Amino acid sequence: MGHGTNRVEDMASPNNGTTAPATANARETIVEIHSVCLPPKKTALQKLKKRFGDVFFPDDPLERFRNQTWRNRMILGLQSLFPIFTWGSQYDLKLLRSDVVSGLTIASLAIPQGISYAKLANLPPIVGLYSSFVPPLIYSVLGSSKHLAVGPVSIASLVMGSMLSESVSPTQDSILYLKLAFTSTFFAGLFQASLGLLRLGFVIDFLSKATLIGFTAGAAVIVSLQQLKGLLGIVHFTGKMQFIPVMSSVFSHRSEWSWETILMGLAFLAILLTTRHISMRKPKLFWISAASPLASVVISTLLVFLIRNKTQAISFIGHLPKGLNPPSSNMLYFSGSHLALAIKTGIVTGILSLTEGIAVGRTFASLKNYQVNGNKEMMAIGFMNMAGSCTSCYVTTGSFSRSAVNYNAGAKTAVSNIVMASAVLVTLLFLMPLFYYTPNLILAAIILTAVIGLIDYQAAYKLWKVDKFDFFTCMCSFFGVLLVSVPLGLAIAVGVSVLKILLHVTRPNTLEFGNIQGTQIYQSVKRYREASRIPGFLILAVESPIYFANSTYLQERILRWTREEEARIKENNGSTLKCIIFDMTAVSSIDTNGIEALFELRRRLEKQSLQLVLVNPVGSVMEKLHKSKIIESLGLSGLYLTVGEAVADLSSTWKAHVQP
Amino acid sequence: MGHGTNRVEDMASPNNGTTAPATANARETIVEIHSVCLPPKKTALQKLKKRFGDVFFPDDPLERFRNQTWRNRMILGLQSLFPIFTWGSQYDLKLLRSDVVSGLTIASLAIPQGISYAKLANLPPIVGLYSSFVPPLIYSVLGSSKHLAVGPVSIASLVMGSMLSESVSPTQDSILYLKLAFTSTFFAGLFQASLGLLRLGFVIDFLSKATLIGFTAGAAVIVSLQQLKGLLGIVHFTGKMQFIPVMSSVFSHRSEWSWETILMGLAFLAILLTTRHISMRKPKLFWISAASPLASVVISTLLVFLIRNKTQAISFIGHLPKGLNPPSSNMLYFSGSHLALAIKTGIVTGILSLTEGIAVGRTFASLKNYQVNGNKEMMAIGFMNMAGSCTSCYVTTGSFSRSAVNYNAGAKTAVSNIVMASAVLVTLLFLMPLFYYTPNLILAAIILTAVIGLIDYQAAYKLWKVDKFDFFTCMCSFFGVLLVSVPLGLAIAVGVSVLKILLHVTRPNTLEFGNIQGTQIYQSVKRYREASRIPGFLILAVESPIYFANSTYLQERILRWTREEEARIKENNGSTLKCIIFDMTAVSSIDTNGIEALFELRRRLEKQSLQLVLVNPVGSVMEKLHKSKIIESLGLSGLYLTVGEAVADLSSTWKAHVQP
Repeated sequence: MGHGTNRVEDMASPNNGTTAPATANARETIVEIHSVCLPPKKTALQKLKKRFGDVFFPDDPLERFRNQTWRNRMILGLQSLFPIFTWGSQYDLKLLRSDVVSGLTIASLAIPQGISYAKLANLPPIVGLYSSFVPPLIYSVLGSSKHLAVGPVSIASLVMGSMLSESVSPTQDSILYLKLAFTSTFFAGLFQASLGLLRLGFVIDFLSKATLIGFTAGAAVIVSLQQLKGLLGIVHFTGKMQFIPVMSSVFSHRSEWSWETILMGLAFLAILLTTRHISMRKPKLFWISAASPLASVVISTLLVFLIRNKTQAISFIGHLPKGLNPPSSNMLYFSGSHLALAIKTGIVTGILSLTEGIAVGRTFASLKNYQVNGNKEMMAIGFMNMAGSCTSCYVTTGSFSRSAVNYNAGAKTAVSNIVMASAVLVTLLFLMPLFYYTPNLILAAIILTAVIGLIDYQAAYKLWKVDKFDFFTCMCSFFGVLLVSVPLGLAIAVGVSVLKILLHVTRPNTLEFGNIQGTQIYQSVKRYREASRIPGFLILAVESPIYFANSTYLQERILRWTREEEARIKENNGSTLKCIIFDMTAVSSIDTNGIEALFELRRRLEKQSLQLVLVNPVGSVMEKLHKSKIIESLGLSGLYLTVGEAVADLSSTWKAHVQP
Repeated sequence: MGHGTNRVEDMASPNNGTTAPATANARETIVEIHSVCLPPKKTALQKLKKRFGDVFFPDDPLERFRNQTWRNRMILGLQSLFPIFTWGSQYDLKLLRSDVVSGLTIASLAIPQGISYAKLANLPPIVGLYSSFVPPLIYSVLGSSKHLAVGPVSIASLVMGSMLSESVSPTQDSILYLKLAFTSTFFAGLFQASLGLLRLGFVIDFLSKATLIGFTAGAAVIVSLQQLKGLLGIVHFTGKMQFIPVMSSVFSHRSEWSWETILMGLAFLAILLTTRHISMRKPKLFWISAASPLASVVISTLLVFLIRNKTQAISFIGHLPKGLNPPSSNMLYFSGSHLALAIKTGIVTGILSLTEGIAVGRTFASLKNYQVNGNKEMMAIGFMNMAGSCTSCYVTTGSFSRSAVNYNAGAKTAVSNIVMASAVLVTLLFLMPLFYYTPNLILAAIILTAVIGLIDYQAAYKLWKVDKFDFFTCMCSFFGVLLVSVPLGLAIAVGVSVLKILLHVTRPNTLEFGNIQGTQIYQSVKRYREASRIPGFLILAVESPIYFANSTYLQERILRWTREEEARIKENNGSTLKCIIFDMTAVSSIDTNGIEALFELRRRLEKQSLQLVLVNPVGSVMEKLHKSKIIESLGLSGLYLTVGEAVADLSSTWKAHVQP
């Protein structure tokens, strides 16, 4: 056992065991004391490099390339750029069979959903099919998820539709609107790919789960309300998205309600919801809900075709052009008055679709225990959207509902996306005329069925139970989206989440510690009844970094703890307070304001003849304390490794002074 | 010694010592295990109340009122509203003598500085004197600092001048400009008083010391450059504040330089700087620098008076109206196109002057060991500015330079402000004509001397030494103010500071712990050479709360730690990894995203047959873990109070399994 008392040790000369000072000789009991080390010395550049690496390369992407021959490095590089090379060589017939089955299954979902979601974005229905052809092909080469089913999704479609149609009318200015949609898609892709390339993927982490639950539910409610247009057969509907104008639009056009549409709509809605319910109860019967949209489209189209001469009340899609995606790069524009709108829409839809795609990819990767690389996925989704914007596609990403079907149908690799794209290709080339009589009401019913599952009230209830503040964030984004506007609702929720972090730092928790008898454990006296205060000491802990935002508060708070403790002692006739022990274990960082507050605190405690002792500062904090010379000013017995050692050493010193 | 293994204990039934389960009987060594308690139960309302109290009433302002009679409470209430009642009754002649001396000393500074600073804000010089009369009187009744010398200050004057003159010309639109200045002052006061009333004082904490050092230095450079107009005798000067336009304005008007002005200006500047230097070297000689501005004004005025017929090159103030502050409440306006500018200017100057006033107050209070109540000071400064705006005053606060002189001159109470105000009163009533020939160059020299001390390069160097990021913040605000604009520079610096907090949360430090032999201490293996890894265990600690912003990162990072550790073990042929111990001592908070990440982490580790064990979650974290049922899912041996107990208990269990 060493009794070293040199508490500030340099790693350059550790454990050199300087002898204890004179006072220690007088101590009654010999206390084992461990010195507090500085972290290994690093230059500012090394530290910056490490910090940089932590922020941008937390996954250490070059790890696999180390100790490899050049040839292997080439192969690994190719594989990491195009994940298809990792599994392509082992691809066999058995895998293909699974992928064909699942690919055809999601195609039967993707075709009706594609048409429906394009309508949600106020785009021609055919754009939805185009978007289900090119992007899945690109993703199958670049993407690292095996189960992601790529195509248009409801939330991004809604957001694009709502943001663009606020400035440009999709009916009166349809060409400009289409141009804006493709340009926004290009910027969405550019933004997504840049996040991946610049390794700024953590940006999407700022959309917390609570925010997303609220946002998705709010958007789902808006989408559902919008479908009232199709389900009720209303012709003149508001272009706005908020709750109040939509509801007033529904009831002010009561004369346009058509009972044939309502009847047929409700019937199919009932079928779709029932099949959805069956599949949810028995995941093995996933094909029932997967097949029902296409089946409903076929049946309803037939029905409308049969009664086409009897009634004009039911509106239908009409002519859709045959043929493959026409190129649209000439429709992108990078100047003009609407450029800012296109960029803004691109960024908002880009971040939302990225968040959905990555979350879906991670969910299924985790179920099958493989990794989805966030930054790589961002690049894949980004490139897919950039390419999409040049081939008449609008924003696409991995859809949750279709990916779930894909997973349940037994998809093994991204080939299922290729199969799906092929099915869409056949549709585009040959089957388009068949959709002429497809009624709009069935599209509304399909959208309604898809988005109704996005209102996750159980998750919201769990938030309420576990974390009230998260629930509050969730409600902010729900009502923000519903009542204000989609991007603003999102911004409010992100703001509230960030505010929570700041609030936590501004007013951190402070605790009083006591000793659990017979041990060296010190814990909160409020929480552990066994923990008892030690006469003469006040042991405090702060659960937060000490920053400019809280340094003044903490200084005042600690002084208040001291005053309260002295009042308590006075009341109980206890022994006088001599020492404040400040356990810094949970102080994960400090800045110059914090250091100054410590200096000031020590000075003010000294005026009241109280000693301040610091315990176990973490590495980075210790370094700054050392550089700012506060350690020297605290003196020899101002720094300990554990609270136990501090208490033992200081009490033995006091005893030595009392009984020399 | 109890060997209880019920680790999740409810405070409702603590220490009931349930018996150890069957496996424990097989353990070879008996390990003492302490249970992790939940914090005492509180309803959501109680928690909200506590949180609310922490945020808004950290100083527990009603503490003094408890257990008092109604009469005492009345007196205490009166005293807390008007601090003058706390010391007024004990005021005596001896105190008065000190206050008269110091009051007259600061008056000799306040009169020339008042005139100068008003010119800095592009206001008539007389407004500077008005502002040195009413606000000090109000502060002496409401303020809790004994040493604060109240009046116009350089930074706030500069900011007001720069922000207002960007939209309104002070020479062509002088009446509108004056109206705007008073209206801004009103809003500054309203903002300050509201911060105090709503107990939002922590808002000013977001201006970190590093930000302020950079901002003050940048503003001081701008102010100094502006004085080149007066010192060189330039007539046509730019209204802009940034470095580049000012310098180009100086050199493009070289024909206007007047050698008489330059000569006289430099001479007086030399005198003022020398006296300042003497006083700084010997604080006892404070009166030399305190008297020199007034002396210089007198001498230079005499000089100009004597040579008034020989040269017109030296410009002077001219006619100043005699008499007390005229009322100006009719000049405030709360509508019109410039209202937004007035509010913005009010908020920026309000927060800056508030920060300066409170920092100055705290500095001197700490030297004499008394408390300055932040929220009360805010109200005092706020009311003083609101009253000022109705009596022809512009923004005022506690000046650092004059408060230092006040302190050194032996001020004992706020009466020194009353004495100063009386001296200003006499000046306003009788001495105004004497300033007719006071040259503008002397005002420039006085301002230059005052602001040159604000460039605190030593403090900036210390920031560089101790905390590179703080230095970066400092430079951001310095160059932002100098090159962009005053409010934008400030906004950039605050943004950078907040970004630092977010970055710290987004990419927290993770550490691997090892045991210091012969102890129960676990510390970072990188930092403590004595700390050695324990075979079979990987002990990790995270120095940060676990939030949405970092939960994904942490999950990936911990899995990477695990992979690296397994690779290391493979290399060294060590014993296989069995258990990940996650020390949560420094995890000060968790949200639902964090909890989900823990669930997911446990699931993924389990697939690799690794056990996850949590150690010592803090109170609020424990509560949420409990509510989210993760504790149950971790199982009996998934939660320990200390790392040492976890290691001891788990290894003895393993031994028991190997050798039954």
